[in-house]
Amino acid sequence: MNTTIETLLNHRSIRKFTDQLLTKEQIHTIVKCAQSASTSSFIQAYSIIGVSDVEKKQQLATFAGNQTYVEANGHFFVFCADLHRHETISVMERENLTDSLESMETFMVSVIDATLAAQNAAVAAESLGLGICYIGGIRNKMKEVSELLNLPHHVIPLFGLAVGYPAQNPDVKPRLLLEHVYHENEYNSNKEEQLKQLDQYNEVISAYYEERTGGKRNDTWTSQMAGMLKNPKRRDMKAFVEEKGFAKK
Amino acid sequence: MNTTIETLLNHRSIRKFTDQLLTKEQIHTIVKCAQSASTSSFIQAYSIIGVSDVEKKQQLATFAGNQTYVEANGHFFVFCADLHRHETISVMERENLTDSLESMETFMVSVIDATLAAQNAAVAAESLGLGICYIGGIRNKMKEVSELLNLPHHVIPLFGLAVGYPAQNPDVKPRLLLEHVYHENEYNSNKEEQLKQLDQYNEVISAYYEERTGGKRNDTWTSQMAGMLKNPKRRDMKAFVEEKGFAKK
Repeated sequence: MNTTIETLLNHRSIRKFTDQLLTKEQIHTIVKCAQSASTSSFIQAYSIIGVSDVEKKQQLATFAGNQTYVEANGHFFVFCADLHRHETISVMERENLTDSLESMETFMVSVIDATLAAQNAAVAAESLGLGICYIGGIRNKMKEVSELLNLPHHVIPLFGLAVGYPAQNPDVKPRLLLEHVYHENEYNSNKEEQLKQLDQYNEVISAYYEERTGGKRNDTWTSQMAGMLKNPKRRDMKAFVEEKGFAKK
Repeated sequence: MNTTIETLLNHRSIRKFTDQLLTKEQIHTIVKCAQSASTSSFIQAYSIIGVSDVEKKQQLATFAGNQTYVEANGHFFVFCADLHRHETISVMERENLTDSLESMETFMVSVIDATLAAQNAAVAAESLGLGICYIGGIRNKMKEVSELLNLPHHVIPLFGLAVGYPAQNPDVKPRLLLEHVYHENEYNSNKEEQLKQLDQYNEVISAYYEERTGGKRNDTWTSQMAGMLKNPKRRDMKAFVEEKGFAKK
């Protein structure tokens, strides 16, 4: 065990921050760490928008479904899949790159690149004693967020990252059992075993909620997941992604 | 600056490892760290296959385009987007989740979840003095990799992660300039400025290659990118992803 691993294992999302803002130096350190992550064939297919403007933060909070911590934090980052600069490269180098830029493969590469960078940013922030919370909620309003941040063609916002000084101290939430997620040499798709594992995990999660809420809440993980997934969210995502020039072919 | 940030900033991919294998304890620590990453609405939509079987590693190395370090390393992980267990939940909880599971939104969530986990694994490994290399090359042969690892419907391999004791000490590769990737409050899509920035970065990269190769190589980043993207890779990705039940609607 070292301090980095301690930081990783102690992660929990922070949804309440003090009003202390990050310094420019902290922001730059976090971005530099994000950029140090691996990138597929060195493509660096992402951009990060740092939002400090109070009105913009308010609007993002509304778009994300009135999540106050989108507005009230030390700094807000939006991580974007970005092939816009490769579009510029196409002009600069006089090569037709359209088929690549519009492919599902390159879409996946840009989402993966942006996410590797984001997780480095999150880890860097936490190592500095800051708290973080990812905000997938900005995908509720992809068009509106894109307009607000002036994102050109071939750039889409993937998620936000709220960073700041924690004003709460929540518990670490227990994850799926290791053997449910980690398979040796091949995927274990034995249905009976999977059902047993899910039951086992449901017990862990029920106990966690019960303890945390003084007995008021005891739902299971599988019921939570079914409740969430039975109503499909963001049905216009495929159309939006394609309109922005991604994953078309 | 703390040791975590030092680890992040010192990242470089390692493509040559000693033959020392990771211990079970190291593997479990790395997986636990991966699992501690944030996950969208607690969905935990990924799985990790640890490959130690020598023949399987050889085959993966071939699939990835004969990359020897896919075979010769301390341990090899394959990170997968996984909605298979949510399919099981659909049966268990008697809810129809198909529209959600097949949506572009949930596809993106599962890719993002898997990648957040992977980057935590990478950081954990590096903090232990190990080296890592992401292997996007396994996407050359999605079907073959899926069969080799026995991946069921709704599970796709995204990338590998080779981990081991470094037997080389490469330089840190200079990334895009911070102001090219990091935008304040809105995206700067000024074409002239972008071209200037790309020129500036090209100089950095040329100098880097020139120094590293004793003057033998001096190509620019933009020419490298154009050369790579003019020939679209993995054209069957969209069909494969959809066939596996992802991003269909």
